[in-house]
Amino acid sequence: MPNIIVLGAGMVGSVIAADLAREGHAVTLADIRKDALDAAASRSPRPITTAPADLSDPAVISSLVKPFDLVMGALPSRLGFDALRAVITAGKPAVDISFMSEDFAQLDHLAKGHAVTVITDCGVAPGMSHILAAHAASLLDSCDAIEILVGGLPRIRSRPFEYKAAFSPADVIEEYLRPARIVEHSRIVVRPALSEPRLLDFVGVGTLEAFNTDGLRSLTTSLRVPNMKEQTLRYPGHIDLMRAFRDTGLFSSDPLPINGQPVRPIDLTSRLLFPKWTYQPGEEDLTVMRVSAEGRKNTQPARVQFDLLDFYHQPSAASSMARTTAFPATIAASLILSKKFHAPGVNPPERLAANPDTVNFILAQHARRGVSYTRSA
Amino acid sequence: MPNIIVLGAGMVGSVIAADLAREGHAVTLADIRKDALDAAASRSPRPITTAPADLSDPAVISSLVKPFDLVMGALPSRLGFDALRAVITAGKPAVDISFMSEDFAQLDHLAKGHAVTVITDCGVAPGMSHILAAHAASLLDSCDAIEILVGGLPRIRSRPFEYKAAFSPADVIEEYLRPARIVEHSRIVVRPALSEPRLLDFVGVGTLEAFNTDGLRSLTTSLRVPNMKEQTLRYPGHIDLMRAFRDTGLFSSDPLPINGQPVRPIDLTSRLLFPKWTYQPGEEDLTVMRVSAEGRKNTQPARVQFDLLDFYHQPSAASSMARTTAFPATIAASLILSKKFHAPGVNPPERLAANPDTVNFILAQHARRGVSYTRSA
Repeated sequence: MPNIIVLGAGMVGSVIAADLAREGHAVTLADIRKDALDAAASRSPRPITTAPADLSDPAVISSLVKPFDLVMGALPSRLGFDALRAVITAGKPAVDISFMSEDFAQLDHLAKGHAVTVITDCGVAPGMSHILAAHAASLLDSCDAIEILVGGLPRIRSRPFEYKAAFSPADVIEEYLRPARIVEHSRIVVRPALSEPRLLDFVGVGTLEAFNTDGLRSLTTSLRVPNMKEQTLRYPGHIDLMRAFRDTGLFSSDPLPINGQPVRPIDLTSRLLFPKWTYQPGEEDLTVMRVSAEGRKNTQPARVQFDLLDFYHQPSAASSMARTTAFPATIAASLILSKKFHAPGVNPPERLAANPDTVNFILAQHARRGVSYTRSA
Repeated sequence: MPNIIVLGAGMVGSVIAADLAREGHAVTLADIRKDALDAAASRSPRPITTAPADLSDPAVISSLVKPFDLVMGALPSRLGFDALRAVITAGKPAVDISFMSEDFAQLDHLAKGHAVTVITDCGVAPGMSHILAAHAASLLDSCDAIEILVGGLPRIRSRPFEYKAAFSPADVIEEYLRPARIVEHSRIVVRPALSEPRLLDFVGVGTLEAFNTDGLRSLTTSLRVPNMKEQTLRYPGHIDLMRAFRDTGLFSSDPLPINGQPVRPIDLTSRLLFPKWTYQPGEEDLTVMRVSAEGRKNTQPARVQFDLLDFYHQPSAASSMARTTAFPATIAASLILSKKFHAPGVNPPERLAANPDTVNFILAQHARRGVSYTRSA
């Protein structure tokens, strides 16, 4: 029986551990937070082993992962890169969903040297977004444009924000500040954060507002499609409010003198905003994603589209965002363990789309877990 | 020739001084800010005398006003009450537009003792709003409802706020925080700040949003009308944004620990907001006001309505808000000087409406200055 360790017992890591245990693997879950480990263990349908450990120390990771066949990285983004380097150096294959800000391609040479297979960015977006974008493009004779639309939202909309953060609120604000790299006419162009908002309708959700975000990442170089963009989805009005906050200076990191003390506006704003953006226990979320490819097929204009609409999972009390992020990783784990995917190096998720059978396997495995991607056209 | 002193050389005080000088009075303008005095003197069409003085000290005011026949109070609201007490104690009649938060009725006994006539709250709103409310009610046989709608707005609307503050931005935020006292079924009821927003159309301006504000002041006791309310007008969307700021806690005065230092959110928010809410030189504003009375006349349902739509005054480079606030005060000054109004005590502006001829004089004097109130029905 394969022996797997999951690094990080947060919202996603705990669902990864539970899913791998359900699949019959021997699972160890590591985190410095004892309470998070206990909560994850009690929620897992099958027993898992817990390992309290300081995963911010790469040396701890190096020794911790030694007995395992596969490592699942589910750490906060700021810890992801160093942790993955330690795992690769220890000679272990890995699947990572930490959404590290560093370029993981820098570790490709190291991974090839150790002959280990690593899949990074393997969540829902990035992750399934990239797999489906590459797959959709491959179903056309020529692909002219890729569009990824994705959002995690509370089911119940409460003013003024109509938003809760399914992951770190600081990372959400970062998404509202970071310029978005998109591809136009085969060139990478940079658009301001929160730019080009537009309204779109989604069956089962209604009208949402999309805005540019910096989510293409590896696709900008791995996919030869002349026009590509990612946009994030919110309920209408949220973007205007966030633009107002930003334009007022409330997200600024430049200290201002307030009563003689330097104060960074973002520190105060975060302090006020984060409690309001936190999901309460049992508060339901949803995940909506649309990945489309446009081009030509048999000399005719053609379009391939994949849609996801997933809701909070009552039986396991797991958020939709945690499940849709965890399952691509656990399914990728099974691909590595079964040697269906064995390319050495650090692979962005779209590499899995090189084989259509692999994509169909991934989609079927999602459906088995109750997460349905539907293809149209 | 009557000798008049104007206390305060701010936006309104400087227009009051210029208007009184144009009318042929000998005018002295006092302020602690030398630059404000110089600017006001250079903008006045006729010479005025300037008097540098610290008007936050009531003793300074007592001696300063001695040689004058009439005192015009145009100080910031926090200085208004103490200044007016000093003026009354010095035995001088006065017109005040400081919008003091204290109850000026407390000074009524003092004023009667010194046999001086004082008119307070004598700007546009409060001021003309109260005069026209009382006048409109008197034109009906019975009045059931008074409604005052008023706003000062930039002519050019820029996102996200579509607003500039024609007076102290701190007083504007105060207006967004202070519960509003309105009269319903002859009882004073208190509504939350920013409550009951509704959309209304105004000829020449378009659709505006009205919300409850605490502007009835003396009308709640002086006018026996069972239903009365004041609402402030903004371009649509501004209220939602201000509610979001308030509900986020950005207007709170309760200190939060930020990096070990207590910080009052309102201090940071003001610091960020006020520069964005400041009119730039030459930036045009407008004032819109509607005062209506509903009731019965000759046994039939009847309605009397007064409307004001006034714009930035190019020739004098004076804001509409400054002019519409200054002229009720200067016209009241002429009523006191000509003894057309001579009631001793501290009079709220609606007392001027006891005589319909006085109201007609006030409206005619406004029209002479290019500010037109129009009556319908």
